[in-house]
Amino acid sequence: MDIRKCAAEAIGTFWLTFAGCGSAVVAAAFPQVGIGLLGVSLAFGLTVVTMAYAVGHISGCHLNPAVTCGLAAGGRFPTKDIAPYVIAQVVGGIAAAALLYAVASGSPGFDPAKGFAANGYGEHSPGHYGLASCLVAEVVLTMMFLFVIMGATHGKAPVGFAPLAIGLCLTLVHLVGIPITNLSVNPARSTGPALFAGGWALAQLWLFWVAPILGGVMGGILYHWISAEPSAEVTGLPGATAR
Amino acid sequence: MDIRKCAAEAIGTFWLTFAGCGSAVVAAAFPQVGIGLLGVSLAFGLTVVTMAYAVGHISGCHLNPAVTCGLAAGGRFPTKDIAPYVIAQVVGGIAAAALLYAVASGSPGFDPAKGFAANGYGEHSPGHYGLASCLVAEVVLTMMFLFVIMGATHGKAPVGFAPLAIGLCLTLVHLVGIPITNLSVNPARSTGPALFAGGWALAQLWLFWVAPILGGVMGGILYHWISAEPSAEVTGLPGATAR
Amino acid sequence: MDIRKCAAEAIGTFWLTFAGCGSAVVAAAFPQVGIGLLGVSLAFGLTVVTMAYAVGHISGCHLNPAVTCGLAAGGRFPTKDIAPYVIAQVVGGIAAAALLYAVASGSPGFDPAKGFAANGYGEHSPGHYGLASCLVAEVVLTMMFLFVIMGATHGKAPVGFAPLAIGLCLTLVHLVGIPITNLSVNPARSTGPALFAGGWALAQLWLFWVAPILGGVMGGILYHWISAEPSAEVTGLPGATAR
Amino acid sequence: MDIRKCAAEAIGTFWLTFAGCGSAVVAAAFPQVGIGLLGVSLAFGLTVVTMAYAVGHISGCHLNPAVTCGLAAGGRFPTKDIAPYVIAQVVGGIAAAALLYAVASGSPGFDPAKGFAANGYGEHSPGHYGLASCLVAEVVLTMMFLFVIMGATHGKAPVGFAPLAIGLCLTLVHLVGIPITNLSVNPARSTGPALFAGGWALAQLWLFWVAPILGGVMGGILYHWISAEPSAEVTGLPGATAR
Repeated sequence: MDIRKCAAEAIGTFWLTFAGCGSAVVAAAFPQVGIGLLGVSLAFGLTVVTMAYAVGHISGCHLNPAVTCGLAAGGRFPTKDIAPYVIAQVVGGIAAAALLYAVASGSPGFDPAKGFAANGYGEHSPGHYGLASCLVAEVVLTMMFLFVIMGATHGKAPVGFAPLAIGLCLTLVHLVGIPITNLSVNPARSTGPALFAGGWALAQLWLFWVAPILGGVMGGILYHWISAEPSAEVTGLPGATAR
Repeated sequence: MDIRKCAAEAIGTFWLTFAGCGSAVVAAAFPQVGIGLLGVSLAFGLTVVTMAYAVGHISGCHLNPAVTCGLAAGGRFPTKDIAPYVIAQVVGGIAAAALLYAVASGSPGFDPAKGFAANGYGEHSPGHYGLASCLVAEVVLTMMFLFVIMGATHGKAPVGFAPLAIGLCLTLVHLVGIPITNLSVNPARSTGPALFAGGWALAQLWLFWVAPILGGVMGGILYHWISAEPSAEVTGLPGATAR
Repeated sequence: MDIRKCAAEAIGTFWLTFAGCGSAVVAAAFPQVGIGLLGVSLAFGLTVVTMAYAVGHISGCHLNPAVTCGLAAGGRFPTKDIAPYVIAQVVGGIAAAALLYAVASGSPGFDPAKGFAANGYGEHSPGHYGLASCLVAEVVLTMMFLFVIMGATHGKAPVGFAPLAIGLCLTLVHLVGIPITNLSVNPARSTGPALFAGGWALAQLWLFWVAPILGGVMGGILYHWISAEPSAEVTGLPGATAR
Repeated sequence: MDIRKCAAEAIGTFWLTFAGCGSAVVAAAFPQVGIGLLGVSLAFGLTVVTMAYAVGHISGCHLNPAVTCGLAAGGRFPTKDIAPYVIAQVVGGIAAAALLYAVASGSPGFDPAKGFAANGYGEHSPGHYGLASCLVAEVVLTMMFLFVIMGATHGKAPVGFAPLAIGLCLTLVHLVGIPITNLSVNPARSTGPALFAGGWALAQLWLFWVAPILGGVMGGILYHWISAEPSAEVTGLPGATAR
């Protein structure tokens, strides 16, 4: 495993968590001119658009354990490289939450009790959605996210557009899902803020590991079937999302 | 007819209906930070952008009976394949509405009497537009949607950009038309929610089959004339939207 | 002059005016979830993105007398073809305003006295900007719009991206200028609504012919100088915006 | 140093400052339908998208002293050309602020005491963030901005997409940072409005030179390491952002 690939995953996941969660904590509800859930959805998507063009040619720009697992399940990524990728992603997510906490603390309006962009279900769901709805939403949205990632990076898809398609897909799942779970589809992005929010956020963190990885694996397998493509062992594909 | 093409159309139309209508039901009017009609318009468009890059190279990514009929009228799609495509699209739309209903039911704020993103005219038009206005709007917007689809997938258009042009065109027609009919331009997207909203939504569903298909056929013919291109029988074009 | 080129310009300008002004009249101020000036800006830009991919390879997709004049001044379009292009554009803009008026009339909330998306200065400027500010804003914004059009369609610019760059530039000038003049930069787009708004809108229409064309010519000349390129007579360039 | 390159930098930075700050001053808080911080973020990003397609092939389209210094630190731009680029950028930023002041003065609602889009910290931060938070935010956001610029213009990144990736990255950093410092990441953009706002804006201007340039240099070096690429002296790369 090349150290530069892990560094790219850590930096990229740092960016996804810092700028995505940062837009939610700092700007979503700013009085009168706040960016709202639409702005937060756009911010999360643009972290992937920008990083996929920047480091897609280095690491494939997964930035997300569910993406790494889903690509492996879909035959696009070697199983033996899952662990170092996931570790790098979690390190990046935690570093981002720490830095965001430090910056946000500099404002008199900062109140970590508002959730610090952590994900939750039931009474901690923004729209008070129950556990079953939250579980289904995270599984289905991650499944479709991986389906799009697999398709947009397929050899027959137009070259160069995958970062746009994938980043805008992340925007799309946020447009639907923020009121349900504050939207994860990404265990690394969930882990960082949960460590700083503590309490209920840590207690509910399990869902945002289980559901995205389950959905991601389902999406990888579904696309693998529909495209009738050979597996990674045959093709040696690196799972790059930025072709 | 390849089963994988039909599966791609069903999954794609599922995504269009689940994420498009889902953004409307779940997030449009969320208190203070809701995504509004702009966010819903963006969500519908992004379902097409993401799916066209993912499965455009499999089925052409129509996701819409009006698109399939319009492309056939424009000489880009074989008439004999219309039926399986339309059936797959309607199945996808209904499955999406069922799943969305299940997820949305998990919120204490869910009220299906608000319309469940169904399309309507007259007293069920969001802005109370009369039947004539709604009919004209759906016909003209679908006509122009097909005109753009035909043009962006033409052999002389830049390669690879059609999914962006077509998806953003769907965003555009929503930016204009949601207050008029809640915006359909797509009978499959209309059918799913109408089945769950029931009552008036089912009684008014006819308009959202007639108007989009009429407009789509007009748009296909109009572009066919302006580009002076040969018909599908001559070229054997598959009507793919993702070149 | 090919009749299909003129038809493409008329249809394209119809789309720009119908969907752009339509989003303003129908959806901008819809209660609670309206798309606002941001949505209207996006709608205008997307009319150009979609049409430039659809008919850029037919007519160059000017859709605007100021663009046609500016490209001619910049050495990209033959002077003898200006008249038929401008006539086709004005016909498209008027047809769009007529159809929009008919559709909008079907809503009980329609009030043409609100301006029907016409452009104005002084007391008819949305933010009550004086004539001098309105004149300068229209000249400068059209100048920069043409500068971007000339640059994005230059032979050394990346191939295929010009429709995105140009359409998003139209979004950008709207993000700045709607509160000033309701934003024209396009005499054909201004003429249609003014005919239906009548009164002050017709009396002020002169500014939205003079300022955009002046600015457009300035922008074409400025880019022509900075790029040190030969003129149209030498190269025979058709002024296409969609390469 | 080619005069046309300096002219392109001056015109481009004029556009970034005029349209970006202009959207904030003119349209952000327009009653009921204002574009908000989301619209301002989009406007700043689109100034770069449009200019990078228009003049990227002339000057590289830096439009920002922090970008010029960061690219030099990353081995992509010759050190001897930093001074003329930065001077041209500052001239463009000041000219833009002067023209914007003239246009905005034509509205009865114009109040330069609201800040005229100048950047600030402490009591002049929109969200009253302290100096340390503002310093860290500007350094980190500029560092990541340069990281994306370096990556998206790398020889292995998809060709033609860099203007989109870079412009949308500028949108992203604004989505996070406007409530903190009104978001600079660009000393030239900060200098223009500060000259017209005067007083506190001039007294705090030092931060918006120091932090962006420090962050930009860090980002250039970080990417240079991660990509293991040779330096500019070896490759003779012009630092163009629009390949």
